[in-house]
Amino acid sequence: MDREEVEIEGNSEPNQQSSGQISHLALDIGGSLIKLVYFSRNNNNSVASKAGNASSNGNSRTLVVDGQIHFKRFETSKINDCIEFIHSRKLHLGGVQHHEAPTSDKIMIKATGGGACMFADLFKEKLGVFLDKEDEMDCLVAGANFLLKAVHHEAFTYMDGRKEFVQIHHDDLYPYLLVNIGSGVSMLKVDGDGKFERVSGTSVGGGTFWGLGRLLTRCKSFDELLELSHQGNNRVVDMLVGDIYGGTDYSKIGLSATAIASSFGKAISNDKELEDYKPEDIARSLLRMISNNIGQISYLNALRFGLRRIFFGGFFIRGQAYTMDTISVAVKYWSKGEAKAMFLEHEGFLGALGAFLSYEKRSLDDLKVHQSVQLTPTCTSPVGDKKHNPQTGCLNEYESIQCSIYAA
Amino acid sequence: MDREEVEIEGNSEPNQQSSGQISHLALDIGGSLIKLVYFSRNNNNSVASKAGNASSNGNSRTLVVDGQIHFKRFETSKINDCIEFIHSRKLHLGGVQHHEAPTSDKIMIKATGGGACMFADLFKEKLGVFLDKEDEMDCLVAGANFLLKAVHHEAFTYMDGRKEFVQIHHDDLYPYLLVNIGSGVSMLKVDGDGKFERVSGTSVGGGTFWGLGRLLTRCKSFDELLELSHQGNNRVVDMLVGDIYGGTDYSKIGLSATAIASSFGKAISNDKELEDYKPEDIARSLLRMISNNIGQISYLNALRFGLRRIFFGGFFIRGQAYTMDTISVAVKYWSKGEAKAMFLEHEGFLGALGAFLSYEKRSLDDLKVHQSVQLTPTCTSPVGDKKHNPQTGCLNEYESIQCSIYAA
Repeated sequence: MDREEVEIEGNSEPNQQSSGQISHLALDIGGSLIKLVYFSRNNNNSVASKAGNASSNGNSRTLVVDGQIHFKRFETSKINDCIEFIHSRKLHLGGVQHHEAPTSDKIMIKATGGGACMFADLFKEKLGVFLDKEDEMDCLVAGANFLLKAVHHEAFTYMDGRKEFVQIHHDDLYPYLLVNIGSGVSMLKVDGDGKFERVSGTSVGGGTFWGLGRLLTRCKSFDELLELSHQGNNRVVDMLVGDIYGGTDYSKIGLSATAIASSFGKAISNDKELEDYKPEDIARSLLRMISNNIGQISYLNALRFGLRRIFFGGFFIRGQAYTMDTISVAVKYWSKGEAKAMFLEHEGFLGALGAFLSYEKRSLDDLKVHQSVQLTPTCTSPVGDKKHNPQTGCLNEYESIQCSIYAA
Repeated sequence: MDREEVEIEGNSEPNQQSSGQISHLALDIGGSLIKLVYFSRNNNNSVASKAGNASSNGNSRTLVVDGQIHFKRFETSKINDCIEFIHSRKLHLGGVQHHEAPTSDKIMIKATGGGACMFADLFKEKLGVFLDKEDEMDCLVAGANFLLKAVHHEAFTYMDGRKEFVQIHHDDLYPYLLVNIGSGVSMLKVDGDGKFERVSGTSVGGGTFWGLGRLLTRCKSFDELLELSHQGNNRVVDMLVGDIYGGTDYSKIGLSATAIASSFGKAISNDKELEDYKPEDIARSLLRMISNNIGQISYLNALRFGLRRIFFGGFFIRGQAYTMDTISVAVKYWSKGEAKAMFLEHEGFLGALGAFLSYEKRSLDDLKVHQSVQLTPTCTSPVGDKKHNPQTGCLNEYESIQCSIYAA
């Protein structure tokens, strides 16, 4: 597929726009978080007519529309805030008319994740829209494939505080292992567009970190818990090889004195209760335990199928240096350096992006999003942790990708 | 190797015996627990002279000594209780004289586990004995091989409340995966006597269950925590597939509504604090999370090397029905029924038994324990959970194996 580079124009906030400028609202309603993706045309948009071969319906003339893909998330427990957000910005009016509906005003919104079933009635009641359910795994894979092909600075490695972008040629992308770390973890072997198999998973995921973390530290948000973990020292609660072996390595089997022999193994001490441990040490130990475990199970699955590349997505990671470092080290350690952990800039929105892209299939009268589009982030990536805004629950950076899309 | 069946005689408690009747004290000092193994001759023992070919030193006449192998454990944090126990029963006098020592009374006690280094000075100071360190993995494998070959009712499967003993012919034993769940977890591919490789492991083990469990439930002992978990319901804290999918299965990828999507995933709720959850529900969820995770990683490693049989040992299991059931289901689920989880009656004492057996190599003037000996448990196994005596920290059943050994 040819890639057509399109210049980025303008920069506008969605709340400055009329509903007519917003389209393709798509939702991924997970166990813990709801992710929203939608497109807005730029205000100063002059829809340009352009000759191109990107349209597949035989029409050689396509319209280029400049705008932005927006990303937003809410906690699933606060779904009413999400619905209010959609309502206030009239995002739901940017769905598509349902062609087979008896009434012409039946608006369908693409949605995936378990909540797309569970909350369908709520969306109908509050917003008058129907959720058009897309399969969750289909969407994850479509979202990941899209990002890996269309966005230049999307995939990167992270080790010892060093972030390095990786450019992967389309011909060399498949097969790969996609590990999506949401509340739980899904592991998918991806062989091509729409060609994949869910080969494994684990229930020890982001929901475990946040659930156990809340119980143990009384943090009020996931981000607060992550922030805490930055300041902690896991050696206070983890039993290290050196703790068992009197400070020495167990070199015969390649275990260094600083390797964790037992996560939370020091907390068996009768001398200390929960209150006697610093919450930051507990948060750090928890983060390391879960990240390391996911890294290990991912590697073992990559090994089964001879996959060299493992891409980690999902909202658990959130660009956290320590999380990525732990996962990278786990993959490197267990694979003896043969497999590589890679991360994605838009890690948390794979499913929502996949739902967004699924509009293309049916909304023939509407905008078409082509995977050949060039998406360019508005700014370059910071090395280290992304900054979050706990109040809005949004990334301060990467709220949107400026891009151009083809309108048939 | 020929197996010689020897009739069991007598039954005596070690505290009724003089130190002269006790021998071969061996220790496995782990991160959480100290395991003791020692042999006692029966009181009514008539040492019989018997012709046999079991002796390897060319002496065709061997002595048969009836007695018992005893098993005992202490928490590593209460090592002084352990030393007091050894001292009061004069178990340490049953070590062997060190032949190269300048003084003839230098007693060596076989010991393994990380603590064999760390506590060597303490044993010297308090008991006047030297710990003769044996490699931990060597001992685990030697102990497992010994039990699997010598003890008739040792290995069993456990599923849906049904315990079934498995008799494995010596010729068909190797290769197998040995998963030892102590504070941490070691996974070893065993190819024969002394032939093995540590292929994997995880820090999420018994120390994690006990450490996290103590912090979350304030239980005072591992056994209390296990007992609690019997009464709990993990669905109160775990997020199930049905919780995300509105009560329905995610059948396309083979996940039933009751499968755990996210361990502790329901604890993310803002409405509840730690005090609002029942400790038994938390204990159950924790036990299931850890057992399932170990089962999954074990299976993935068995798959790597084409191993059909996985034997689980270590003190984490303790004959617990729910633990074994969860591990069995995990292995069955992930292997699609191709691999089988098996458990061991003397699961917690593999390392200590290995150290015990290592006396054979050097103590030429002393008793010889041959792997061809027939060990027969004193009673048949109960179906379901073993009963523990929390006060002594001992199994009420299987405190000892009655057996006969050859004395050269």
